[in-house]
Amino acid sequence: MQGPLEPAFVLVRPQMGENVGAAARAMWNFGLSRMRLVDPRDGWPNPRAVAMASGAGRVLDGAQVHADLAGAVGDCTFVYATTARPRDLTKTVFSPEEAARDMVRRIAEGERVAVLFGPERAGLENADVARANAIVSVDVNPEFPSLNLAQCVLLVGYEWRRATHAAPPVREEMAGTERASALEVDHLARHYEERLEEAGFFFPGHKAESMKMSLRNLWSRMPLTVQDVQTLHGVLRQMVRWARHRPE
Amino acid sequence: MQGPLEPAFVLVRPQMGENVGAAARAMWNFGLSRMRLVDPRDGWPNPRAVAMASGAGRVLDGAQVHADLAGAVGDCTFVYATTARPRDLTKTVFSPEEAARDMVRRIAEGERVAVLFGPERAGLENADVARANAIVSVDVNPEFPSLNLAQCVLLVGYEWRRATHAAPPVREEMAGTERASALEVDHLARHYEERLEEAGFFFPGHKAESMKMSLRNLWSRMPLTVQDVQTLHGVLRQMVRWARHRPE
Repeated sequence: MQGPLEPAFVLVRPQMGENVGAAARAMWNFGLSRMRLVDPRDGWPNPRAVAMASGAGRVLDGAQVHADLAGAVGDCTFVYATTARPRDLTKTVFSPEEAARDMVRRIAEGERVAVLFGPERAGLENADVARANAIVSVDVNPEFPSLNLAQCVLLVGYEWRRATHAAPPVREEMAGTERASALEVDHLARHYEERLEEAGFFFPGHKAESMKMSLRNLWSRMPLTVQDVQTLHGVLRQMVRWARHRPE
Repeated sequence: MQGPLEPAFVLVRPQMGENVGAAARAMWNFGLSRMRLVDPRDGWPNPRAVAMASGAGRVLDGAQVHADLAGAVGDCTFVYATTARPRDLTKTVFSPEEAARDMVRRIAEGERVAVLFGPERAGLENADVARANAIVSVDVNPEFPSLNLAQCVLLVGYEWRRATHAAPPVREEMAGTERASALEVDHLARHYEERLEEAGFFFPGHKAESMKMSLRNLWSRMPLTVQDVQTLHGVLRQMVRWARHRPE
């Protein structure tokens, strides 16, 4: 039996509507839209939440509101509680990355999972954490561990997207060109070598060979594109033109 | 020659002081404190930045202010530009995770690195990106790619901390107890089996063995602590006490 394909994010007793709106934005930044609210302090719907969520209003439109946490997670088979402070509760503690992987695995097996986020001021109460199956904790600077609600939502959402969308860790933006071939780089090197020879660059003579070698190595070391090679040919041609036709 | 042990975060032409303050908080959440500001719109120092940064004021106190980007990164040997939009510029594009690893490697080799963050409304200009050696891009929901300044700072800071502080991906919070031994679980299983036998639980008789097996398997499957085992012995003892002494 397959449940929803993404976790529900449960905001437990959120205080300011602005923060609910910011959380909605952070969810939708990473493609998440299943929000649940437990007993929001300022009632629901909340115009401040709507104003802050601009562009992510669909997350608020679809939000479920529950009177208590038990009702909000009643249909879930695995619940993660986000908390910064250590609790005196025996429980598995996941990093956000590992929690996201665990969610992906459970959802693939048909589980229905939720992530709890506490109120702005003090976070989840121990009674809330005791209802969860595991803890998610962000490793922060111990001198300044205070992440706000939307930031915490953002980091879990970020890891959810990383776990579900394998984006390339490094890619080359080629902007319509491509890497120059060795032959093109060789032509460029010879063009410079010949004109610089003519210009008297390789001086004194006993250093000429090592100077040429250094210049050749410089070209090879650069990640030159076809466009770059053309540009550098053009630069040299223009300097030659200028040198040959400069006023006496 | 060793430079600073962390990247500088350069906010290029930031607009609202609040956002500079929020960026300072996000940096300090992950232990980063080298902020540089290029031509902040509302001048510097900025009381709104100070109010928003509460707890991370030291980041603002140490911030350098520069008139232009060239001055802000003049001492750096490698500069990353954060950008969501693709640019028509040939350049390597890192994920935040891979960028953080690259920073760690370069800093270990004595390089001085900086990360550029653009103004709130439109992000970095192409002229800014052309000054950088590489791009950092967060993979977001293409339908809603707008990350705000502090969120972008938060995600790069988060990856910096992950690359420099190897926090355990999963750990068990034992809250002062430890996992029960097989012997302890065995005693528990036998305690329940004996009392449930007495209470007539294993009925009908031809199912008794498979019922006992299921119960034994239940105990083994639970991640029981020494404390849990004691609690479960206590639960059973109390039920037995109640059963034996209940009023007729």
